[in-house]
Amino acid sequence: MDAMMRDAMSKDMMSMEGMPEIDMAVMQACMDACAACEQACVVCSVQMMDGQMMDCAPACMNCADMCNTMMRAMMRMQGMTPASLMSMLDACIAMCQTCMDMCMPHADMSAVCKMCADSCRACMDACMAMKNAMSMA
Amino acid sequence: MDAMMRDAMSKDMMSMEGMPEIDMAVMQACMDACAACEQACVVCSVQMMDGQMMDCAPACMNCADMCNTMMRAMMRMQGMTPASLMSMLDACIAMCQTCMDMCMPHADMSAVCKMCADSCRACMDACMAMKNAMSMA
Amino acid sequence: MDAMMRDAMSKDMMSMEGMPEIDMAVMQACMDACAACEQACVVCSVQMMDGQMMDCAPACMNCADMCNTMMRAMMRMQGMTPASLMSMLDACIAMCQTCMDMCMPHADMSAVCKMCADSCRACMDACMAMKNAMSMA
Amino acid sequence: MDAMMRDAMSKDMMSMEGMPEIDMAVMQACMDACAACEQACVVCSVQMMDGQMMDCAPACMNCADMCNTMMRAMMRMQGMTPASLMSMLDACIAMCQTCMDMCMPHADMSAVCKMCADSCRACMDACMAMKNAMSMA
Repeated sequence: MDAMMRDAMSKDMMSMEGMPEIDMAVMQACMDACAACEQACVVCSVQMMDGQMMDCAPACMNCADMCNTMMRAMMRMQGMTPASLMSMLDACIAMCQTCMDMCMPHADMSAVCKMCADSCRACMDACMAMKNAMSMA
Repeated sequence: MDAMMRDAMSKDMMSMEGMPEIDMAVMQACMDACAACEQACVVCSVQMMDGQMMDCAPACMNCADMCNTMMRAMMRMQGMTPASLMSMLDACIAMCQTCMDMCMPHADMSAVCKMCADSCRACMDACMAMKNAMSMA
Repeated sequence: MDAMMRDAMSKDMMSMEGMPEIDMAVMQACMDACAACEQACVVCSVQMMDGQMMDCAPACMNCADMCNTMMRAMMRMQGMTPASLMSMLDACIAMCQTCMDMCMPHADMSAVCKMCADSCRACMDACMAMKNAMSMA
Repeated sequence: MDAMMRDAMSKDMMSMEGMPEIDMAVMQACMDACAACEQACVVCSVQMMDGQMMDCAPACMNCADMCNTMMRAMMRMQGMTPASLMSMLDACIAMCQTCMDMCMPHADMSAVCKMCADSCRACMDACMAMKNAMSMA
């Protein structure tokens, strides 16, 4: 996400009633982590091991969809409230946790699962940072 | 959703560890409510009033994406845990609440906003019924 | 899709420059076929056979995403041109064809793959009917 | 997209029947352009001008969905054929063209619309490069 996009969103957020002023660097990092996690999950959901798809695939697909929905919601903050944003962040964290728990046991034999689990962990951390930024605001 | 699809999902759910046995009629009703809410929100997000788009549009787009993600997650229960499902249902309820609160003030002047708000209410109720079904299981 | 939603879309379509007047019954049938195909594909993409996911899964996921995108585009015709609509219909037909070709060989052993292939065929037919309706308009 | 993700996909693509060997640098550039275009379109679809949403919003939403679907399809090449990939690229190009044509007239007064139109142009170019890479293979 480049600076112009961030600035465009920042201006719009200022005008929302009731929304605490969020550190844009934290939010940008969260959107980037969601985008990266979606991509890793999509790739992981179709990888083959010994000619078979892996059992983490359904969790990866669910996580990919949630990360995309989370990213878009942060780009459309005019349609969020503090309560709905917190609830979405909790759900995104839960989906990343579920996906990571499914991929981690494969990490030793699959570099893709390791990449996916790492992306899930990074996305969880970024979502928690967003929650902290909102709580402090 | 037809009977064959429901039966296919039901069989797969039986094999998941730790997932309570969920009443498939309640889950089917929730998936149908999510699908209907996504459609209503997409239509509402682009409607014009006096030559202008309406200010509920961002909330409608966010709600549409979340309802689709929620529906898909229930169709891929192999990739869910009881905790992540509960968290997703909470987030879907929060997004429907936010969208309904934005559309309801337009309900008198826009039949589409009224339809969208009604769909959000129905989706919230269906998600709460899912939460209850899981809590009791 | 209920009558109110269809009427809301119909009114908006009238105001688009250059868009031929499309038979709303044909378009409604196409949106419904896309929605049904997305659902069948999502369920099919995670089914297990002898403890393994099936090799049609990636095609099913791609088809599910395209059918959802196609359905939404028809609900947001203010953002379409006749040329882009035709091109999207061609792509949706191609993805349904690809998914059907992957699922059909499994139809004898999997009721879900049969359901998915049937949904793809129905969606292709509905998209072709849309193309014909536009060509004649 | 980092090198590990690209390598993971590259290996899987080698095993597909009938798919020409595609230059992974060209495909990676196309996926990145799709991801960037989706983000720009989502931000553009909710921007306000003089207290009103802009009339490019429906085209931006349609383009955002198509770019995400296109990106995912390239990440799941096991579920594509050369014909379906070509058709998807054509549809993505058509949607970017439509969105760019809607945003360009606003470019002088809106930096966001200019950014969105530029992203659409870049995505079109990247999709055309993919088509060329496939034609030459």
